[in-house]
Amino acid sequence: MAISLQGNAVVGQSGGPTSVINQSLVGIIEEARRHHHIEKLLGARHGVRGIIEEVFVPLQHLDSDLLERIAQTPAAALGSTRDKPDRDYCQRILAVFKKHHVRFFFYIGGNDSADTALIVQELAAAEKYDLRVLHIPKTIDNDLRVHDHCPGFGSAARFVAAAVMGDDRDNVSLPGVKIDVMMGRNAGFLTAASILARHHEGDGPHLIYLPEAPLTEEKFLADVQAVYKRLGRCLICASEGVRHPDGQTWTEKLASNLDMDMHKNIQLSGLGTLGDHMGELVKTKLGIKRVRSDTFGYLQRSFPGFTSHVDAQEARLVATQAVKLSAEEKTVEGSIAMRRVSNSPYQIETFLTPLNTVARLTKQMEASHIIGGNDVSPAFADYVRPLVGTLPTIATLDET
Amino acid sequence: MAISLQGNAVVGQSGGPTSVINQSLVGIIEEARRHHHIEKLLGARHGVRGIIEEVFVPLQHLDSDLLERIAQTPAAALGSTRDKPDRDYCQRILAVFKKHHVRFFFYIGGNDSADTALIVQELAAAEKYDLRVLHIPKTIDNDLRVHDHCPGFGSAARFVAAAVMGDDRDNVSLPGVKIDVMMGRNAGFLTAASILARHHEGDGPHLIYLPEAPLTEEKFLADVQAVYKRLGRCLICASEGVRHPDGQTWTEKLASNLDMDMHKNIQLSGLGTLGDHMGELVKTKLGIKRVRSDTFGYLQRSFPGFTSHVDAQEARLVATQAVKLSAEEKTVEGSIAMRRVSNSPYQIETFLTPLNTVARLTKQMEASHIIGGNDVSPAFADYVRPLVGTLPTIATLDET
Repeated sequence: MAISLQGNAVVGQSGGPTSVINQSLVGIIEEARRHHHIEKLLGARHGVRGIIEEVFVPLQHLDSDLLERIAQTPAAALGSTRDKPDRDYCQRILAVFKKHHVRFFFYIGGNDSADTALIVQELAAAEKYDLRVLHIPKTIDNDLRVHDHCPGFGSAARFVAAAVMGDDRDNVSLPGVKIDVMMGRNAGFLTAASILARHHEGDGPHLIYLPEAPLTEEKFLADVQAVYKRLGRCLICASEGVRHPDGQTWTEKLASNLDMDMHKNIQLSGLGTLGDHMGELVKTKLGIKRVRSDTFGYLQRSFPGFTSHVDAQEARLVATQAVKLSAEEKTVEGSIAMRRVSNSPYQIETFLTPLNTVARLTKQMEASHIIGGNDVSPAFADYVRPLVGTLPTIATLDET
Repeated sequence: MAISLQGNAVVGQSGGPTSVINQSLVGIIEEARRHHHIEKLLGARHGVRGIIEEVFVPLQHLDSDLLERIAQTPAAALGSTRDKPDRDYCQRILAVFKKHHVRFFFYIGGNDSADTALIVQELAAAEKYDLRVLHIPKTIDNDLRVHDHCPGFGSAARFVAAAVMGDDRDNVSLPGVKIDVMMGRNAGFLTAASILARHHEGDGPHLIYLPEAPLTEEKFLADVQAVYKRLGRCLICASEGVRHPDGQTWTEKLASNLDMDMHKNIQLSGLGTLGDHMGELVKTKLGIKRVRSDTFGYLQRSFPGFTSHVDAQEARLVATQAVKLSAEEKTVEGSIAMRRVSNSPYQIETFLTPLNTVARLTKQMEASHIIGGNDVSPAFADYVRPLVGTLPTIATLDET
């Protein structure tokens, strides 16, 4: 294969970290060693912020044992950033790249990172500066277009499914209404993954609320009452992005009500608010005594030692592919996506999709995967099941 | 060994479940099969509630494969209860025991369950009804007196330590102030176990707040400011039972302030309140922008597939010992406790302690294990380390 371009490379990590984002980093480091087109591989501290501030760490000489341990460590080993660069910011990035003879840019992140990558690549093209820009997907929200699913999602989904399995047993032990709130402001994939906790008739989650399915307080209460009447308990999984029919999230509306009611005493910006509010509704409107709520929070993306093996492998694979493609003459830019070739047995292949098919835009749950505004379909369960790997053992005295 | 007593046995589970409480249940079932003094082994559904309502399930004929799967399942397989029986309630329990020829009562629970066991045993003794009452310890709070530590604690501590390890990496990736709130209203053991997340200089948790160490808002803010100034970030682990110097918990005070301020609009009974409030203090008083909080909630006691192997083994061991002791002529009542024979290598032995040494009373962290009101000692880390088993791998680019 002809090497058309040679120079230094920069790798960065961006946005909310995941528990396998370092698998991608290590995939890039390991693969870069196998190629000659990358001279120096520089890690940018805290993503684009580290680029414009020229805070780089050399990555090529780390030993493999340490790299494997880093790969198993959640959260961005290079540091991450919430900066969303505009054209001026990207111009500065490009200037730094030129200064450091950077010809390859590997950016691990979500749709915002793909957007940054796209702008940088367009600026480079306009200036006829040879730069290959590869986006390596990562998001627990699973909301990238074109991509069948995103590295980071499987492990977060595994955490959610396992947590709900255990919590459901807890709710059987001491029956009541339990509300669990999951991350995913605009996309319900992670909350929907809780369906994998259901194994037998009567198992929770009994109600699943997603940002994609508008929810009134009336419907919520009627749903809970119906389940409680039938089972004497109810386990609810709700996305933090649950919305009223007018599009406003429950959290936003609650915050504005609180601001009005409470003047400035206490601002309730915490994510605990939604679960507490839903619980309070159930207590006061339905008169149910034992009501509890948990917000799974950052543990969903950072809990160590519980990753999905499939997810870990795929996070490394897409990164490895990015480095391989960067060596090819025809590659200029793109995001490394996965396509599901077969679901049973589960098999994927990777392909390069242009950055503008992924940048900025997001994906939501398919309408056909949402049932009755409070549940998800068996087809969605089939979609998500291979991504989480084997779930923990759960059994009851009633089994035979 | 002479068998002095023969008859039926009842086993029950009580209080907040743990992820290894079924190890104890299975330990009793398996061991009961090896003895002849127990004729029928009956499981009481939902603890004492199932006894007085005579809702029993036969347990002797479950197959070993199912039992092993149940042992790995968190939360009480028989169901649990929050009932705290008085003498009248216990009189009803005794009446049911007599009716069903129950001569052995195995009660898996905390100090309240030990109290129930004690009352039932005293009533039986007063009526000269031969009944052997054995308490099998279980509590994530680790607050039983006499016991070196309690089954259930090690797995909850393992969850907390791992969660904080991952969360600390997340906080390094995107620096700010992060507050994690742990269970343990009166005893700080579980919160203190977060110290195991610290491996290198600069690792969190940077501040650990326990119910045993009174905390003013002023001290809290001064502590956070000092850490933030030094490291540019701060990870805080706080017990839900953090108290003001007057003994009132922060949560109680907050709830009463809110009630006053908000009339009856929204009651904030959720556990998210403390973390949100601490976060809001940091934002408004210290002007730090990135502030987040998580309340670990029920996951601490119910997360499956992540138990401490040591804890699982010990939960089964104490139950097995209870059945063995119930066969001995001299046994009348007691709680099966562990004594630490050696810490390195870790080794324990079990012994029987009278129910009145464990009933009702609770234990708190030793004062010598609390440092400066915001940290715990290396000696406490040594105490808790063997209980959690091997923690997940964590590594950083800065390691060599």
